[in-house]
Amino acid sequence: MDKQISQAVIRRLPRYYRYLGELLDDGVERISSNDLSKRMHVTASQIRQDLNNFGGFGQQGYGYNVAYLHDEIGNILGVNETHNVIVIGAGNLGQAIAGYVKFERVGFKIIGLFDVNPELKGKLVRDIPVQMLDELPEFIKHNDVEIAALTLPKSNARSTALKLVSLGVHAIWNFAHVDLDDIPDVIIENVHLSDSLMQLSYNITQQK
Amino acid sequence: MDKQISQAVIRRLPRYYRYLGELLDDGVERISSNDLSKRMHVTASQIRQDLNNFGGFGQQGYGYNVAYLHDEIGNILGVNETHNVIVIGAGNLGQAIAGYVKFERVGFKIIGLFDVNPELKGKLVRDIPVQMLDELPEFIKHNDVEIAALTLPKSNARSTALKLVSLGVHAIWNFAHVDLDDIPDVIIENVHLSDSLMQLSYNITQQK
Repeated sequence: MDKQISQAVIRRLPRYYRYLGELLDDGVERISSNDLSKRMHVTASQIRQDLNNFGGFGQQGYGYNVAYLHDEIGNILGVNETHNVIVIGAGNLGQAIAGYVKFERVGFKIIGLFDVNPELKGKLVRDIPVQMLDELPEFIKHNDVEIAALTLPKSNARSTALKLVSLGVHAIWNFAHVDLDDIPDVIIENVHLSDSLMQLSYNITQQK
Repeated sequence: MDKQISQAVIRRLPRYYRYLGELLDDGVERISSNDLSKRMHVTASQIRQDLNNFGGFGQQGYGYNVAYLHDEIGNILGVNETHNVIVIGAGNLGQAIAGYVKFERVGFKIIGLFDVNPELKGKLVRDIPVQMLDELPEFIKHNDVEIAALTLPKSNARSTALKLVSLGVHAIWNFAHVDLDDIPDVIIENVHLSDSLMQLSYNITQQK
């Protein structure tokens, strides 16, 4: 796919991917933009505009080929290949993420779980044993680690991120409540839970 | 504050709130837009434009009054009042959220934790015992519950959300991988972890 797709469309793709996946699971082969519009609560014209970026949906009136679109969007999102993920911080959140089987179905395979707390050493989360952080360099040397999820306290997040980059890991899924976006040579995706909760309380306050 | 503030500014407020809170913790009383700009990696003119919405930062050259701004933004975000939160789904993710002390510091108090698994009944997360979901109506009757975090499987998310609304809870922090935004009379804030991971893999794929 050579065409440039706008960032606004890109941000909507995971949602299309999810709905198309559900349709596939339900055995639906084709769907019209109107039917997809009803399901997704987005206007049919928005859907047509967005999905026009991918072509290949047959003539007007025939609807979209669900499997084809799902696959095309999956290619764009890079979820049709496997991405090896390690989780740094084996507290509740780290264990929740390491234990989340569904990520594997969209190509993200958790292959390691690290912490500094010796009491957690060897604890199994699914079949993944918690390793100590000082074992990380050796682990990265022998495994193809693409993404590191940081589920550790804010105070250790930056130094850990810098260490990861120096070890060759260039994509960080950051749950620590600190910005790391200024670190060079790394792609950061933030999940700032407190910020999300504040958006919610803003909306509550506005309604009052 | 009567003035209408744009949605784009609103979305940036939690980040300002976080940085201003850190400055307060560091004992900083005033800060110039240039210094704040260096810290936040945002242009000084963006900061001036955004914070102009709040006035009250003294004359040019004197910088912003950190405590005042922090408080004003806190008021807008509604985090200067307490919001009672319950968590539905006491798996790893639910326990991580219920155990997150920091939410309380920004006004969100976790007062209840619910699940359907009888093995979890009475388990303490911090000082919060896991209760069974059938105890929820009684609990809501006797407690002022404002927000429910849904950390349960997708298959139960919609029915639980509808139940919550019927019991008088009108704000949902949704971690289930399903859209609930079409449910009437409820404010939804989504944290879709898989979508976030797909954004990350999109950016990785683009860089390759």
